[in-house]
Amino acid sequence: MLAVNDIRIDFDRFWSTIERSAEIGKGRPGGLSRLALTDADRTMRDQFVAWCRDCKLDVRIDAVGNISARRPGRNDALPSVVIGSHLDTQINGGRFDGVVGVFAGLEICRALDDAGRTTERPIEILNWTNEEGARFSPPMVGSGCFTGAYALEWVYARAADDGATFGAELERIGYRGDAAIMKRPFDCYFEFHIEQGPILDAAGMQVGVVTRGYPSHGMIVEYKGETAHTGPWPMERRRNALLAGARFLVAVDDIGWEYAGSGGKGTAARLVSWPNKPGILSDWAQATCDVRHSDPITAGVMAERMRRAAAEAALRAGCSFEILDSWSWGGNIFDAAMVGLVRDSARQLGYRWQDIESQAGHDAYFMARHCPTTMIFSPCRNGITHNNNELCTRDDLAPGIAVLLRSVLARADG
Amino acid sequence: MLAVNDIRIDFDRFWSTIERSAEIGKGRPGGLSRLALTDADRTMRDQFVAWCRDCKLDVRIDAVGNISARRPGRNDALPSVVIGSHLDTQINGGRFDGVVGVFAGLEICRALDDAGRTTERPIEILNWTNEEGARFSPPMVGSGCFTGAYALEWVYARAADDGATFGAELERIGYRGDAAIMKRPFDCYFEFHIEQGPILDAAGMQVGVVTRGYPSHGMIVEYKGETAHTGPWPMERRRNALLAGARFLVAVDDIGWEYAGSGGKGTAARLVSWPNKPGILSDWAQATCDVRHSDPITAGVMAERMRRAAAEAALRAGCSFEILDSWSWGGNIFDAAMVGLVRDSARQLGYRWQDIESQAGHDAYFMARHCPTTMIFSPCRNGITHNNNELCTRDDLAPGIAVLLRSVLARADG
Repeated sequence: MLAVNDIRIDFDRFWSTIERSAEIGKGRPGGLSRLALTDADRTMRDQFVAWCRDCKLDVRIDAVGNISARRPGRNDALPSVVIGSHLDTQINGGRFDGVVGVFAGLEICRALDDAGRTTERPIEILNWTNEEGARFSPPMVGSGCFTGAYALEWVYARAADDGATFGAELERIGYRGDAAIMKRPFDCYFEFHIEQGPILDAAGMQVGVVTRGYPSHGMIVEYKGETAHTGPWPMERRRNALLAGARFLVAVDDIGWEYAGSGGKGTAARLVSWPNKPGILSDWAQATCDVRHSDPITAGVMAERMRRAAAEAALRAGCSFEILDSWSWGGNIFDAAMVGLVRDSARQLGYRWQDIESQAGHDAYFMARHCPTTMIFSPCRNGITHNNNELCTRDDLAPGIAVLLRSVLARADG
Repeated sequence: MLAVNDIRIDFDRFWSTIERSAEIGKGRPGGLSRLALTDADRTMRDQFVAWCRDCKLDVRIDAVGNISARRPGRNDALPSVVIGSHLDTQINGGRFDGVVGVFAGLEICRALDDAGRTTERPIEILNWTNEEGARFSPPMVGSGCFTGAYALEWVYARAADDGATFGAELERIGYRGDAAIMKRPFDCYFEFHIEQGPILDAAGMQVGVVTRGYPSHGMIVEYKGETAHTGPWPMERRRNALLAGARFLVAVDDIGWEYAGSGGKGTAARLVSWPNKPGILSDWAQATCDVRHSDPITAGVMAERMRRAAAEAALRAGCSFEILDSWSWGGNIFDAAMVGLVRDSARQLGYRWQDIESQAGHDAYFMARHCPTTMIFSPCRNGITHNNNELCTRDDLAPGIAVLLRSVLARADG
């Protein structure tokens, strides 16, 4: 038990939600493979909704499947203080990524109930749909749709590798709700998440005060060539789209290495091609890559080099190319007062804390366009994540939840 | 009509078999997508068997699904003169690759019937199973099994990307026959094929006398790494198997370019990885590459460099690697007397011909270990093949068939 402003957080109860979640959509040993809008996602959603109703939270589903669970305030007409994250995972995901943020919100509502406390403003938990983008690309469509960055019909039309569309799968699992509740004003938005990197763990820190997001730039590039025999066809006439994609991936990795000394990254994430068979050159490929750097100008230079690399790869392989999609996120997006509040909470509660930048994408990035937003990180062991060996203990997570609770109370009663 | 030793080849009849075949397993416009052991392959086999039975050929199916159709000789105890090729195609295949060799054999039997001619030795047509390897890897398993290079049970266990096994699919389409007829002695083996390269067409040649096969070396390499987040995970700790595979592909292409001036090739054919999704590094990849060069020593050097490139790619990406399979083929494998006979036939018939090397893999390579073997090439337009735009006319194919007929008669009556 840990008390913040006389509100007692029950970590056993919080941990039991993590353990129940770890049984739904099991992946490799210890991990989860709970892709968005699958049967496992539905089971997890049903369980979460049941827990919320047990707390008498007002549960509503929006048109993109986001689950909102609202605890009324004394002045219930005020916009909510929102605690959001996601319950979907990567295909080789861990038990904590995303999940801890949603259940921290649930535990805070339960703890407030235990204490018989009503806050001035309502408190609202949000489970965003398809944060990971592991089944339907792009990621973070739930918050993207909620805030108007993506059109609903466009999101419905996204297709998984097996051809299933987002809209049909959302309908199938019974989580296509009411569009009218989107774009509501919020008082503010908090996202509590594991760090997903080794910085806090290596430094022995208990809490990361997230100040900003790494400027990140990504793109999906399509290459078109011509099928031909892999044997007699002369090198100078080849138009192998698979090779164009491979050259692009290698070039982006090289860019990442060039800036690795200052924390830059270049990632070759995905390459698909057709026919991708022995004996025949591929005439189509699609590659997904991104670059990230703490310094926005450097990140911009890396992005420009990535774009050139996409074109050069096409030229070298005799293919045409098209940038099908590109995105940029990060920077100084979080609210200074919110960041200051989290820093204050960590200091007041006596934890070892440090400022930290978020290097991954999060729903908080879309929410930052919508209302004052910030994030709180907990350490995770060795920074391992998107991996079944992802590991946090109760002690790793407790300080972050306490900081979250203190900060939420400050907004909800402030 | 063209007569060779008073045997009249009916090119309209031959062409009608090509046209019927072009309707079975249609692919992109003008092309075929008749993968081994699919429904389309069964339909084509059924049609071919029916045509053979119309000619009163003795049709037998062996344990790997090869179809033998035998025309008795006067001295029927003598080993057959065999005309072989394949009726399966690549996923974006043309109408001619493989197909013309089988139907040339059929037309020769029909023409002998028309002339009421019985040869001294039996003549046998062979349709080899899965020459392309487009659905089940490796290619040429029909001839490989027939000649004992591959064990039957190993071939049965090969799995397609959709998980279907060779053995189950062979059974399903009803072409799992009798093992006892394999490894029979043959008098000799002819394979008539389109060139699949631009040399004959560019030179205005009507017939290619195939003297040898390009020494070729290929391998399947498996890379193992670790999944992790694509964002915060430091470059120096990444073990991205997809990237290892991409580096290998690029390196093999670079090797190919280095030797392109002397006709060398390096081919990046296939790359699969898991999870191969945005947001997560892949922990598994498999890459298929090969190198080819006319000079065996140079081809050997290229192969050694390919092996080193496989290891270096692993090292650069922080992955482990294993060469799952490797193969070598080509060289001076064809029978000098058989090559001389084909050259004689081309000269006697007055065609424009030239010696040529085979740069692709063919069932003839396995057969060369079994009996005196050679190949005959016809030009194909611009050398385009493994592509729906593959194109030959009757006039392109007629000289090769005539040379085949004359050579077959010389052996069958010799």
